[in-house]
Amino acid sequence: MTFAQQMENDVALVEDYLSHVFLSREPRADLYDAMQYSLLAGGKRLRPVLMLETGRMCGGDPAAILPFACAIEMLHTYSLIHDDLPSMDNDDLRRGRPTNHKVYGEATAILAGDALLTAAFETMLENGGDLPAQRVLAAAACLGKAAGARGMVGGQALDMAGEGHSLALSEVEELQRLKTGALISAACEMGCILAGGSAEDRAAVVKYAQKLGLAFQIRDDMLDVEGDAATLGKPIGSDAANEKTTFVTLKGLEQCQRMVEELTAQAEEALSGFAGRAFLCWLAGSLVARKH
Amino acid sequence: MTFAQQMENDVALVEDYLSHVFLSREPRADLYDAMQYSLLAGGKRLRPVLMLETGRMCGGDPAAILPFACAIEMLHTYSLIHDDLPSMDNDDLRRGRPTNHKVYGEATAILAGDALLTAAFETMLENGGDLPAQRVLAAAACLGKAAGARGMVGGQALDMAGEGHSLALSEVEELQRLKTGALISAACEMGCILAGGSAEDRAAVVKYAQKLGLAFQIRDDMLDVEGDAATLGKPIGSDAANEKTTFVTLKGLEQCQRMVEELTAQAEEALSGFAGRAFLCWLAGSLVARKH
Repeated sequence: MTFAQQMENDVALVEDYLSHVFLSREPRADLYDAMQYSLLAGGKRLRPVLMLETGRMCGGDPAAILPFACAIEMLHTYSLIHDDLPSMDNDDLRRGRPTNHKVYGEATAILAGDALLTAAFETMLENGGDLPAQRVLAAAACLGKAAGARGMVGGQALDMAGEGHSLALSEVEELQRLKTGALISAACEMGCILAGGSAEDRAAVVKYAQKLGLAFQIRDDMLDVEGDAATLGKPIGSDAANEKTTFVTLKGLEQCQRMVEELTAQAEEALSGFAGRAFLCWLAGSLVARKH
Repeated sequence: MTFAQQMENDVALVEDYLSHVFLSREPRADLYDAMQYSLLAGGKRLRPVLMLETGRMCGGDPAAILPFACAIEMLHTYSLIHDDLPSMDNDDLRRGRPTNHKVYGEATAILAGDALLTAAFETMLENGGDLPAQRVLAAAACLGKAAGARGMVGGQALDMAGEGHSLALSEVEELQRLKTGALISAACEMGCILAGGSAEDRAAVVKYAQKLGLAFQIRDDMLDVEGDAATLGKPIGSDAANEKTTFVTLKGLEQCQRMVEELTAQAEEALSGFAGRAFLCWLAGSLVARKH
């Protein structure tokens, strides 16, 4: 099996879980439709794949980790729905389709986000299966810390407050660390926790995730300048239009490309102690070259 | 100690915990200010008191339950912030003060709600202390189920969808069960779970909570007609202005009063197996007579 096939297999498991998880529920107006609209809109499923494969590398059972991998995708999806709202980034298009509030209205979009955020915790807390309760608790706590005011939501608050100002590199890095980095780190850390990894293992996979998350964000900023709108599924040049300070406005495309390559090497280096690191190293490398 | 003093003591514990919980955190623009603005706006603290006292009645240690009691108040507070938003109920006043988005703007109010919802889970998952991990998991799962699409958020979605239509009694009851009842039931059930209560105990306290929650909502509808705006801290007559179907529009004030008294008696009856039920029986009775 190639790495690309392994990735496809992981994504297929996640898609299958996510497309069934709310099906047996009693309808609540169009709430579940709105949740599924955004949850099943494709996307790279990067965070679930990172969790499943970090768990596998640390000796865990991907099948036991799957509900947690899907929970982090629910949480990521809620953050996209709320970030797109008119009072936030006011985006009309996401992954090539109208944003949630454009289809379901603002009230339902807010509620769909709230419900997906809650569902992330419901899913983790109800589907620990045979995993030790302590591991389930630790993994869920890890996601909570990464998602809340100390992590992602705090980053979004800083981002909104910084709009229209130019930022220093350290501020852009802090934003990345909170807004997107925290969740990517949590994905890897949770995989390790659920697999029963040691504190040393946790530190190593978190280092991998931090390097990879930063590289991912820099690449994102580059694609907003040099990318293709059709491949990306969203308009390019939106950072410039919003006068946003990004890694590209601070460092230029060429240096950004060097930073991405360096960070990718550091990410791979962080995993040198793991015999089963090949897939995660390939994944880090593939993000350097990505077009969307 | 009188029951009223015992209630005051519980509320003081909750206020103290809530006023300190975010203090040591690094600021995130005005996110924590917005969270605290609504979290520390007073209110009855009914859900935390129910959890602490149900826990005590079932043989638990209120000190160990306190973080969970504060978590349910964070969750309740997030729901109020989001419900008040312009695209939802568009309310300007809550507990006698401007609503969150009136003070901090819509974007920050949405984020403050998101952060409080997440903080509810963070608080529970990080502060189990010496409680068995299985109990912490079960209690947090109980709150998740009550708060999400199967509970409170589902109720809010149905409520928004039903606006402008007249509803049947069964629909108004279903709305109450989801929108406010689910969280009140969870408060009592979590107290029992954390105390290590039996399945029989859980069923009894849930029955108590369901009767009490319904009585509480009917009394709320009555106060919107016969209450005093200054005592309530919000304008009266808003249900009529919004052409909302309530227990009062369906049944009239007199029959509502009889229903509240009957439900209160049933709530007390549900606890007949507990030696330490006196406080919770007093609390149910005191809600019949409340003016706010």
